[in-house]
Amino acid sequence: MKLQDVPTPAVLLDRGRLARNTARMSARAQDHGVALRPHMKTAKSIDVAKRATEGHFGGVTVSTLAEAEYFFDHGIRDLTYAVCVTPDRLPRARALVARGATLHLITDSVPVAKALAAQSSGSPLSVLIEIDSGEHRTGLPPGSADLLAIGEILHRGPGSTLAGVLTHGGHAYGCDTVHEIREVAEQERRAVVDAAATLREAGLPCPTVSAGSTPTAVHGESYEGLTELRPGVYMFFDLAQLGLGSCSQADLALSVVATVISHRPENGRLVIDAGGLALSKDTGAARMVPDAGYGWLVDPVTQARIGDLRVVAADQEHGYVEGTAIPYDRLPIGSRVRVLPNHACMTAAAYSTYLVTEGDDVVARWPRLNGWA
Amino acid sequence: MKLQDVPTPAVLLDRGRLARNTARMSARAQDHGVALRPHMKTAKSIDVAKRATEGHFGGVTVSTLAEAEYFFDHGIRDLTYAVCVTPDRLPRARALVARGATLHLITDSVPVAKALAAQSSGSPLSVLIEIDSGEHRTGLPPGSADLLAIGEILHRGPGSTLAGVLTHGGHAYGCDTVHEIREVAEQERRAVVDAAATLREAGLPCPTVSAGSTPTAVHGESYEGLTELRPGVYMFFDLAQLGLGSCSQADLALSVVATVISHRPENGRLVIDAGGLALSKDTGAARMVPDAGYGWLVDPVTQARIGDLRVVAADQEHGYVEGTAIPYDRLPIGSRVRVLPNHACMTAAAYSTYLVTEGDDVVARWPRLNGWA
Repeated sequence: MKLQDVPTPAVLLDRGRLARNTARMSARAQDHGVALRPHMKTAKSIDVAKRATEGHFGGVTVSTLAEAEYFFDHGIRDLTYAVCVTPDRLPRARALVARGATLHLITDSVPVAKALAAQSSGSPLSVLIEIDSGEHRTGLPPGSADLLAIGEILHRGPGSTLAGVLTHGGHAYGCDTVHEIREVAEQERRAVVDAAATLREAGLPCPTVSAGSTPTAVHGESYEGLTELRPGVYMFFDLAQLGLGSCSQADLALSVVATVISHRPENGRLVIDAGGLALSKDTGAARMVPDAGYGWLVDPVTQARIGDLRVVAADQEHGYVEGTAIPYDRLPIGSRVRVLPNHACMTAAAYSTYLVTEGDDVVARWPRLNGWA
Repeated sequence: MKLQDVPTPAVLLDRGRLARNTARMSARAQDHGVALRPHMKTAKSIDVAKRATEGHFGGVTVSTLAEAEYFFDHGIRDLTYAVCVTPDRLPRARALVARGATLHLITDSVPVAKALAAQSSGSPLSVLIEIDSGEHRTGLPPGSADLLAIGEILHRGPGSTLAGVLTHGGHAYGCDTVHEIREVAEQERRAVVDAAATLREAGLPCPTVSAGSTPTAVHGESYEGLTELRPGVYMFFDLAQLGLGSCSQADLALSVVATVISHRPENGRLVIDAGGLALSKDTGAARMVPDAGYGWLVDPVTQARIGDLRVVAADQEHGYVEGTAIPYDRLPIGSRVRVLPNHACMTAAAYSTYLVTEGDDVVARWPRLNGWA
């Protein structure tokens, strides 16, 4: 099938770009002697996971228990659920462990650690302590007295084993230069290496020292003391990552194919059928790429940008395209365009299937998981 | 099942509020002597559609052909696909008509009208001409010479019948007062009533004169000359509609149930498991409700707001809650909250099932459609 025949909007994955992105990150982690545990929250696809884990131990990171169950059902046995677990989720986690999964949970809370440690049936749960390396999302601040308290509880409790420490240098997304990203990468590394040292000095085990976001995994200079990296969006990249210098435009593997549905020269616009649902309402890349809008228009075959055309506004099923000069003749009603999205993680979530492309040929269809149930 | 036992995040529909919202709009349309053709783009659920069409002729509006097929498969026979159609979509539209659907399409384009009119097999397609009443989305500007040109093409062509005119007063979302919304409602009405008069004076038929958005359907003073109204989000409402004065907080029927996953008093925050995917990244309500954020936190049982707590930032699976004073004791890790979303149409799209609630009891599960395939 050709892109011209695809019902739109639909999400596309460029096979060659995906292969290049996953191979590059795999080699980079190998070069630094650190394991790659790719974060599957962006792709949510076993077909992508198989490629992302090549050359490494085969474990992945997930953002929901639904993802953990999905990847386990498709043959991936080692999974880190990298969002703070709550006690009500433990029966679901235990059920997966009982089926044979190696599942690592994370916590930043003394009460939750007590609930994990107190569980008495089944195998002990493997738990990492989350450290806040500067993102201020979740995790213990450096130097928190709770680190040893939680470590002791998890190590002594019959229901838990202390697996180590984990952090996410998400504040790299706030950087303006590669130099700043390198500083965040070092902050991220130091936060968990120091926490691991604190645990070990207190006689506690800390086999895993886990860090990583795409910007810090791409630009970091040293990963000494880390045992694994957990980047995710590098498989696809997007305008936000382009703006952060994580990739070039030729690396952007995810796009949305859309159809021109209206010419409105009196408003200086062209309208496509990819709106807020098809692209997502995320405009986060604007900090780095001022004209990112909801995405850039590129040629469906060459993927070269069409002038400076971008989606400047989005209603549910309407995307409004503006630019210095709109080539209406080149883009008649019914013609196809590709849109390089602002934020791939949000855009991909609107679809249940990736159309895998080579040029303008659809060569495969890969299902993806959505939702939490 | 109680809300405390629901895996989170999940989307909730308050049965009583939904019933009140749909009954009120149904009665309002009846009082004005105009048919209600509810827009199902927000709900995408046959269970909701059955309630929304009560007291009227049973037809609905849809935003995709996938919705048209879904509602037809569930017994709704009269459907208006209210996004400009493109020639490549005609085989799919014709297939639905061949199965017995009464399907109305819309266009604002002479070339598309020619493609519609030229179709020679099967029943003629019913087509409305879209008019731009001031929203500047799609549609012909008032006074456009294309109105009669398209009308003639559709009326004469063997493949099409001219069904009338349609507009969407979406610029009501840019209003600051109810007075301004009433002016937009009148603009919306006049735009299609005038276009209908132009067509009729030229000897062309114009049986349908269609208008409507939720703000203009709630606040308009006259619908004289219209044959139908097409509001949609009024079934659920949201913070954007609250800010526009379309409803009161007690009318907000859609919410997301979430779990507190971390206390971060050192950052002045509490973190929930409803982030950018569960709530959407839409912040459009901020224009009307400056503290809307990604949603307001309310008590899971009473739905009364918890102080001034709101989701101020959202990563994929993390929602960051701030407020003047965060009651950490009342909201321990693992406790449930409800979030009243910024924009219901975007939020609902992240879920495949509505949990229908009475108080904190889940009394039904209604599937919803997503995607375009």
